[in-house]
Amino acid sequence: MKKVAVIGAGNSKFGVRNDVNIAELAFEAVKPCLEDANAAAKDIQFVALGSVGAGAWYEELLPAVVTGEYCGLTGAGLVRCEAACASGSAAFFTAYSAIASGQADITMALGVEKMREIDNATSMEWIGRAGYYMWEFHNFGMTFPAYYAMYATAHMAKFGTTEEDLALVAVKNHKYGSMNPNAHLQNKVTVDDVLSSMVIASPLKLYDCCPLTDGASALVLASEEKVKELGIDTPIWVAGIGYSSGTANLSKRPDFVGLESSVSASKMAHKMANTAPDQLDFAEVHDCFTIAEILAYEDIGLCRKGEGVKLLREGQTEIGGKIPVNMDGGLKAKGHPIGATGCAMIYELTKQLREETVERSRQVPLKNYIGLAHNVGGTGHYCYVTILRR
Amino acid sequence: MKKVAVIGAGNSKFGVRNDVNIAELAFEAVKPCLEDANAAAKDIQFVALGSVGAGAWYEELLPAVVTGEYCGLTGAGLVRCEAACASGSAAFFTAYSAIASGQADITMALGVEKMREIDNATSMEWIGRAGYYMWEFHNFGMTFPAYYAMYATAHMAKFGTTEEDLALVAVKNHKYGSMNPNAHLQNKVTVDDVLSSMVIASPLKLYDCCPLTDGASALVLASEEKVKELGIDTPIWVAGIGYSSGTANLSKRPDFVGLESSVSASKMAHKMANTAPDQLDFAEVHDCFTIAEILAYEDIGLCRKGEGVKLLREGQTEIGGKIPVNMDGGLKAKGHPIGATGCAMIYELTKQLREETVERSRQVPLKNYIGLAHNVGGTGHYCYVTILRR
Repeated sequence: MKKVAVIGAGNSKFGVRNDVNIAELAFEAVKPCLEDANAAAKDIQFVALGSVGAGAWYEELLPAVVTGEYCGLTGAGLVRCEAACASGSAAFFTAYSAIASGQADITMALGVEKMREIDNATSMEWIGRAGYYMWEFHNFGMTFPAYYAMYATAHMAKFGTTEEDLALVAVKNHKYGSMNPNAHLQNKVTVDDVLSSMVIASPLKLYDCCPLTDGASALVLASEEKVKELGIDTPIWVAGIGYSSGTANLSKRPDFVGLESSVSASKMAHKMANTAPDQLDFAEVHDCFTIAEILAYEDIGLCRKGEGVKLLREGQTEIGGKIPVNMDGGLKAKGHPIGATGCAMIYELTKQLREETVERSRQVPLKNYIGLAHNVGGTGHYCYVTILRR
Repeated sequence: MKKVAVIGAGNSKFGVRNDVNIAELAFEAVKPCLEDANAAAKDIQFVALGSVGAGAWYEELLPAVVTGEYCGLTGAGLVRCEAACASGSAAFFTAYSAIASGQADITMALGVEKMREIDNATSMEWIGRAGYYMWEFHNFGMTFPAYYAMYATAHMAKFGTTEEDLALVAVKNHKYGSMNPNAHLQNKVTVDDVLSSMVIASPLKLYDCCPLTDGASALVLASEEKVKELGIDTPIWVAGIGYSSGTANLSKRPDFVGLESSVSASKMAHKMANTAPDQLDFAEVHDCFTIAEILAYEDIGLCRKGEGVKLLREGQTEIGGKIPVNMDGGLKAKGHPIGATGCAMIYELTKQLREETVERSRQVPLKNYIGLAHNVGGTGHYCYVTILRR
């Protein structure tokens, strides 16, 4: 297996981006990414695009072609990768494998999503379909807040988690989101703000949910030879990747207090990287809802089952704590353009590991120089975990 | 780079398959494929699904999850790959890379598409969007027959290709399709049938166009170690893969007599395989329209530019000729379920290289035991070329 490094990273501004089309939005990430990698668009041999909403949220059915062309990438091998909300990580895995297998020297993982062109009801339908259409959605009318509300209720019943605990996730992630100029939501919130916000699917309220976001994120990956050739100072190495999937028929799940696919994918990534959860300096986890961040702490082994809330209450997942989590604001505040999210997590790992987060107050202290990104599709229908090391 | 072999192949019946849902259709390919590979569903570590129409032609937005679960593949890593009509080959590339890089030992490439649930006008819109939506489709209203009609007209003007020549492609592919029990169209046609069929986009007539097809195709891939462990008699090795892309803005193309991405992808695949076009025993090429097969002959080097028609007129691409092409009936007669087509081409390579095509009259004679699959997305927006060797 050839060694592969992330050598460039770029993000667009996340938010409601009806000022740009999907190709222009992608360009906002690709341009700084290529500059960061000291590479030209024509150097890129293969591009894996993470994007879900082709023909649904936005009009282009072939976003890889159209965004690729606008960014000058025509001629490279192209594929669009879809793994629901983990599409960005799936694209990263694909761009990584093309180099690790020896087929390419320099590739790009690009994530882009436009979710705000259409009305909210249609949006909710599309997101609802990202479960098991014929089962949960079509027969029972469940959409995503309802799925995660079920997990929240079970976690509260079994471990005594409270609505205030869920709110702590929002408070933390909005706090760090306010330090991230690319974040969709940059307002700070209090526990009271969260608790008094509109109920969406009890016990989840508006501020327990991530926003629907437009955004793009790009990464350039390179082989060891290419890293040398381009004179990259601080390559960030891909140490491990893990993947798994879970049943889409929620009635078949053993319980609702964790996601099996997160557990498996995390173990697989650590095995490949030869690391353990307690060696991580920080993590990005999939907080599409506040409860999801607590499940993630437990599923990826940042604490034991049922102790996620303890980490939160003690502030262990903030800077100064045991393991800072979601220092870019997470999906909750940075926003969740579903095809781009996985790449944006790896963007944050790269910038943190290089100690160049623009906003120094959210730079995590590094000891082992290892970070992890945990990206879930659906409610654990897919999971990808990526470990980077400086 | 680790060696990778195709060790199992399965196809569903192609056609109008409103008798099954997308998961059931996939199962028709996955079941024989796993049996062929002497493997169980739970053995598969990673699944790459080629499928385009999620939320467009069919309802499921996450077909990888739903088909994977129905086929017992839950727990494996999952991704859906979209490269328009080359999606099946893109999925194969992804499943291949996961092994070649050393991350997995046994993976599956699965292609599935259901295109016949919706009305024809909506279908044409979706397919039309698989160009450059905002440019060709939205501004000029062009759909796929029109794109390829432009190529046909240019080829006729430059090289003296005639409508009868185009018809010869249909006659040949329907002939071999009639020997393939899985093919969508199993009727033979004459040159007169083709010439007198309804004009779709002049000079292309109904019988110059492939049908809209439902179908699935599955392949199991394995590392050298796994091939031994499973006791596979006749592994079919992946010798080379090439990929490229072309501008989606047709006004930027240098000419309309060939697809640059086909030329590049073919060269790349041969370079990796250390082979040349004249070493091929046979090929599967992307004949979505009759003109496309002639372009392919020339683009992938089966003959010189402008001499494709000579190959056809002399019967060189039939059994007994220099290089048999599309012995399964091609997209033209076997049908073109766009996400499955790439996998179905590689299925045919596998069966031919093992000399076990059920219908012996379409078994090609093998000398070098090398076959090639050429799979185009859009009008050369994407191209993937795969070379297998026994």
